[in-house]
Amino acid sequence: MREASRTLLMMPDTLRTRAILALADLVDANHTLLLEANARDLVKMTPVNPLYDRLQLTDSRLDAIVSDLRHVAALPCPLGEVMEERTLPNGIELRRVRVPYGVIGVIYEARPNVTFDVFSLCLRSGNACILKGGKDASESNEAAIGLIHRALRECGINPDVAVLLPSTHEATEALLNAVGYVDLCIPRGGRRLIDFVRDTARVPVIETGAGVVHAYFDRLADLETGIRVVDNAKTRRVSVCNALDTLLVHSSRLADLPALCKTLGDKGVEIHADARAYEALSGHYPDRLLVRAAEADPEREWMDMKMGLYTVDDIDIAVEHISRYGSGHSETIISEDPVAQSIFTCRVDAACVYVNLPTSFTDGGQFGLGAEIGISTQKLGPRGPMGLREITTYRYILTGHGQVRK
Amino acid sequence: MREASRTLLMMPDTLRTRAILALADLVDANHTLLLEANARDLVKMTPVNPLYDRLQLTDSRLDAIVSDLRHVAALPCPLGEVMEERTLPNGIELRRVRVPYGVIGVIYEARPNVTFDVFSLCLRSGNACILKGGKDASESNEAAIGLIHRALRECGINPDVAVLLPSTHEATEALLNAVGYVDLCIPRGGRRLIDFVRDTARVPVIETGAGVVHAYFDRLADLETGIRVVDNAKTRRVSVCNALDTLLVHSSRLADLPALCKTLGDKGVEIHADARAYEALSGHYPDRLLVRAAEADPEREWMDMKMGLYTVDDIDIAVEHISRYGSGHSETIISEDPVAQSIFTCRVDAACVYVNLPTSFTDGGQFGLGAEIGISTQKLGPRGPMGLREITTYRYILTGHGQVRK
Repeated sequence: MREASRTLLMMPDTLRTRAILALADLVDANHTLLLEANARDLVKMTPVNPLYDRLQLTDSRLDAIVSDLRHVAALPCPLGEVMEERTLPNGIELRRVRVPYGVIGVIYEARPNVTFDVFSLCLRSGNACILKGGKDASESNEAAIGLIHRALRECGINPDVAVLLPSTHEATEALLNAVGYVDLCIPRGGRRLIDFVRDTARVPVIETGAGVVHAYFDRLADLETGIRVVDNAKTRRVSVCNALDTLLVHSSRLADLPALCKTLGDKGVEIHADARAYEALSGHYPDRLLVRAAEADPEREWMDMKMGLYTVDDIDIAVEHISRYGSGHSETIISEDPVAQSIFTCRVDAACVYVNLPTSFTDGGQFGLGAEIGISTQKLGPRGPMGLREITTYRYILTGHGQVRK
Repeated sequence: MREASRTLLMMPDTLRTRAILALADLVDANHTLLLEANARDLVKMTPVNPLYDRLQLTDSRLDAIVSDLRHVAALPCPLGEVMEERTLPNGIELRRVRVPYGVIGVIYEARPNVTFDVFSLCLRSGNACILKGGKDASESNEAAIGLIHRALRECGINPDVAVLLPSTHEATEALLNAVGYVDLCIPRGGRRLIDFVRDTARVPVIETGAGVVHAYFDRLADLETGIRVVDNAKTRRVSVCNALDTLLVHSSRLADLPALCKTLGDKGVEIHADARAYEALSGHYPDRLLVRAAEADPEREWMDMKMGLYTVDDIDIAVEHISRYGSGHSETIISEDPVAQSIFTCRVDAACVYVNLPTSFTDGGQFGLGAEIGISTQKLGPRGPMGLREITTYRYILTGHGQVRK
């Protein structure tokens, strides 16, 4: 694997691109094979299981996979960029050059499209990948890796640059302990998977995804902006990591809460409010959707048409709340006050900090990265949406003619 | 601590600088206090212990600490740099801004000067630090943190931005498990410490230091360059991580070995050679310094006047050897052949790859970083020598006026 990953360093970028395009053609021509394999997975799951929909492949989903593969093939190559170039006083030429990580392990759950997604992003950035998919999708993933290996062979690339692990617990343990063989491990999935990986891994890990996301409606917030931002952040898609979980409202603006939350009520968002906010909304928000916040609510990532609502007496308390309960993913302030904006963007320590915008924009595509392998919520390594550039590292190359150090 | 670390974000850089200068003055004025504390540590250790010298403070070492502190205070501030600035098609202004990690934990061994070093680099880059020094240096470190807290208080900075942990195993465990409180942990010390930290930590870690370093003397190497490079890499300082451990020689150049290694023999370097190299050197190298390589030698970081020596039949085998036994620290090729140079710099995956230069240059000062908190040997996060910039991360700040995502 390590040896195979090194062959990626020496090949022209056009060859890696060609393999991804070949894979797109293979997927396009093999709907039946993929759908039959997927059907063998689906019969093992009841359709009422919420994972069923994620697991299911359809003709249109396969078309989307083909289109995504072609898109990744069309992105600019992230490798070889000279990030820094200097001549040291002793005449040594120092360059800092962008290179792949080498071998990236990705652990994910029941979505078979992730197999194609991760493979193409890793190959495009010169990385070999070890794929560990969910047990529920094992037949689909076997079919996918079969096509991936065919595409690689067609292009004369060592198929060992993409390995699918058996979907066993032992395979996961081995991957997480492969010090010296795996340069980076990225878990893609729910909080439990991520916690397990972080707690178990001896190889470097990038935590992704889990987002406890806040919006702070400031003393000097514009109400119309607030309505748009809160609605879009909360209701655009409730099951994604950038969705709003908690609204913090400045106590001087409690009277605006009915207007601020009207759209949420119309759409059926259940609000878990603290005492002051509850009182301000009572009679102005659907009764069945208004409940008192429980003790554990501030730390919840709802993933549902539900939202926490807390009153704060000043921006410092808002920042403190976010620091305590936020997961470093995405946070936004609604305010027309430049001082408050600046305090917020300076002190709120998240990957993405917004001013007068919904957190829904935290996304590789929206950021112009062209694609996304995940959203990092840790500070070591890339932060926020990770595109091709974010799954590369650098190397110092120093050239001289026998200078020595005193 | 988290709260204290946030105060660092809001203060002007001049205040952080002033605190470091105040500390320099305090160290300058308190030699007696520091030397007495150090003496209490030293009595607990026998002078023949190799750690004794590392532990010992002297007037001239304190002067060096003062000078290092003033140097760190004079470096440019790494924070606030706008690394990227774009307007997205929907009018959103996206900026990527350099910010501190937050809270950095550093675990180190018996050198009391590291306490001042780590504190000043962390403070200068806006990071709070948790210091876990070695038990042997506990009195010295207590005295040091006392002066650090005095300097911080004099400047009106919350002294909690620098915390010294008790030198117990429990404190280390707590630090390594402080998910959500510690953003980054850097072990500084020997291989055992680093392995322990990597295997135990649930917080993100940067592995530092350990270097199994190679020089490859190519078919088309210039002999004079090779003599200079090998001598400097091996004998400049044998106890540092960038020191040469293994020389790989192209089989067509075995006849040059006596000349290549002459200086090493004069200086007393013991060579552990494979069969072919042993034969080539026999009779041309001091007998008592020439031994046959043992099986475990290729993976040894010697830290001594000793060196492995292996014969390779081509550059691919050299690259393979380095991939297998190297630690990703520093590697060098001696060759006049541009093709060999390019294969080596492309395929050898180390933080620092050299052409016709000794690996002794792997050092923050030599790289022009101004200072160094360690040398990273992993690929996630900063790689190679880490200065102030390398202990910062970034944050996306997006500003709009109520745009929403479709």
